[in-house]
Amino acid sequence: MTRRSLLLVLSLLSFTLSAFGGPPGAPITLVIHGGAGTINRGEMSPAMETEYRAVLERALLAGYSLLSDGRPAVDAVEAAIRVMEDSPHFNAGKGAVFTHSGTNELDATIMDGSTMKAGAVAVVTIVRNPISAARIVMERSEHVMLIGRGAELFATTQGVEIVDPSYFWTERRWRQLQKALVEAAPRLGRGYVPASPDRKFGTVGAVALDRQGHLAAGTSTGGMTNKQFGRVGDTPVIGAGTYASDRSCAVSATGHGEYFLRYTVARDIAALMEFGDMGVKEASEKVVLRTLVDAGGPGGVIALDRKGNYAMPFNTTGMYRGAIGRDGVPRVWIYEREK
Amino acid sequence: MTRRSLLLVLSLLSFTLSAFGGPPGAPITLVIHGGAGTINRGEMSPAMETEYRAVLERALLAGYSLLSDGRPAVDAVEAAIRVMEDSPHFNAGKGAVFTHSGTNELDATIMDGSTMKAGAVAVVTIVRNPISAARIVMERSEHVMLIGRGAELFATTQGVEIVDPSYFWTERRWRQLQKALVEAAPRLGRGYVPASPDRKFGTVGAVALDRQGHLAAGTSTGGMTNKQFGRVGDTPVIGAGTYASDRSCAVSATGHGEYFLRYTVARDIAALMEFGDMGVKEASEKVVLRTLVDAGGPGGVIALDRKGNYAMPFNTTGMYRGAIGRDGVPRVWIYEREK
Repeated sequence: MTRRSLLLVLSLLSFTLSAFGGPPGAPITLVIHGGAGTINRGEMSPAMETEYRAVLERALLAGYSLLSDGRPAVDAVEAAIRVMEDSPHFNAGKGAVFTHSGTNELDATIMDGSTMKAGAVAVVTIVRNPISAARIVMERSEHVMLIGRGAELFATTQGVEIVDPSYFWTERRWRQLQKALVEAAPRLGRGYVPASPDRKFGTVGAVALDRQGHLAAGTSTGGMTNKQFGRVGDTPVIGAGTYASDRSCAVSATGHGEYFLRYTVARDIAALMEFGDMGVKEASEKVVLRTLVDAGGPGGVIALDRKGNYAMPFNTTGMYRGAIGRDGVPRVWIYEREK
Repeated sequence: MTRRSLLLVLSLLSFTLSAFGGPPGAPITLVIHGGAGTINRGEMSPAMETEYRAVLERALLAGYSLLSDGRPAVDAVEAAIRVMEDSPHFNAGKGAVFTHSGTNELDATIMDGSTMKAGAVAVVTIVRNPISAARIVMERSEHVMLIGRGAELFATTQGVEIVDPSYFWTERRWRQLQKALVEAAPRLGRGYVPASPDRKFGTVGAVALDRQGHLAAGTSTGGMTNKQFGRVGDTPVIGAGTYASDRSCAVSATGHGEYFLRYTVARDIAALMEFGDMGVKEASEKVVLRTLVDAGGPGGVIALDRKGNYAMPFNTTGMYRGAIGRDGVPRVWIYEREK
């Protein structure tokens, strides 16, 4: 066999393998978070901690199995987020916090870094998995952002799973609202009553790199306990809570949404890479550990580049988070000094 | 008089003058737009054209008189936009287009570049001047973005002027909806009916530089004729339709909102200046004439830096626009080759 024909055979083999989900082009990677905030060791029971870690692992494996089948990054992002949305432990989907009026209003976004397409829903109350509704907006509408009843109507016409609003009732979140209402009571009658952020920003999110080298990001949240007046945070906003571009990175954020909106956090991390020649670690740490800290905005992000490098900086005491790479072993962390 | 005491007197004089609205520190500047789109000479009657130019001039003078009194940039932005919102000619406030269901849903944002604070309202139906509601959100809530009924409730409690929804009914916009409905009819019953952008993106916006050297930006819109499902475009989104930072520039955008959301247009112009060392003209032209053109996104922006340099690039045949600087003479333009 000549050297030339050997090369031909090898390249045909490699084409065949990659077309059928064989060995990688890009180093498939999935990184997730389940919210940042004041999470202290000792304040959580061992049983609860085990439970959190188990859901994060399930989410990682759900997304990873799709990536290793050669499926696109958006599939992995959606699958991982659905697992966390279906758990009562995270402030998204089933475990969403309550608004001031005792309702649950959910927001979600997804963005595909290979097409720069994006979809978002905000203030939806009857969609079981808002991340899937966001994806449907991205793929089947010509719009990016749909909100309220209109978003619910569109999701319904597209066959997204609809639930009774009571699906989102959980005792733990209900008690959190009652506590927030009692704390806010002294300020009632003096005009505006601010929402009571419970120092836990239980948004969930995922970023993924698929075998074809494409990036995607998604985020889903129930917002802020005791929120009023149709408040929307950074989660459903492209460039604030979520961003993905194959030119730089995929980002999903969690934190005090107003700061993430004003400082366009997700896009700024990507822009520092694109225009400022930073790496994913340097860029995300600059925004989370400097810009946001200077501004007084608590929270964190997960960020992933096209080589599979990722960073998970946060300026709070903890962030539920996890990652899985080519070896297929899920790794999860909660507190600051742990890794 | 010694040289030193002369300097002291001069500096005291300059302080006094600047504190009482005297000669400038920064070169006060106000730039506005009334929407970009397919605007061709000959398709507009001379009377109509005169009318448009008159409103733009009134808006410029309203904002400029505040700037020359030493008032902050946000005041000038709000005042200029209110003039355009109160005119039936622009797609914002009084002249807002109709949604698919025959309602008017308005969005607006404002951002203060000196504090990086921002406020936005989306899908409001009873607020006469959405830009003023956005400002109230910025100044009197701890939130950035309020939407729908909640935003209306908050605006009402804060004394913002409320009108009956019929205030926004204008014959011209109603006819535009009927036309769009007829055009969309053949696609009815085949699932999703896309909105019908009439190739005029009649958003209004303003950017200002005040004597203290601070920047602000604001944008207000009625959205897209025949829009459905609670669609929200770029206008109420920080970093997409509106952005201001004293570190770089103030930007207000007009165009096919979905592209401006996906490409975080307003923030990208500022980020190119901050991280990529571009000037305001180069940065805004790169985004509008290259990124958006490559993506197929029609529209334009106004952008202003802290030295009073501004740019007004658009990739459509026209953009209603105007500027006023230290000489106090308002200048307005509509078509491409005109200046």
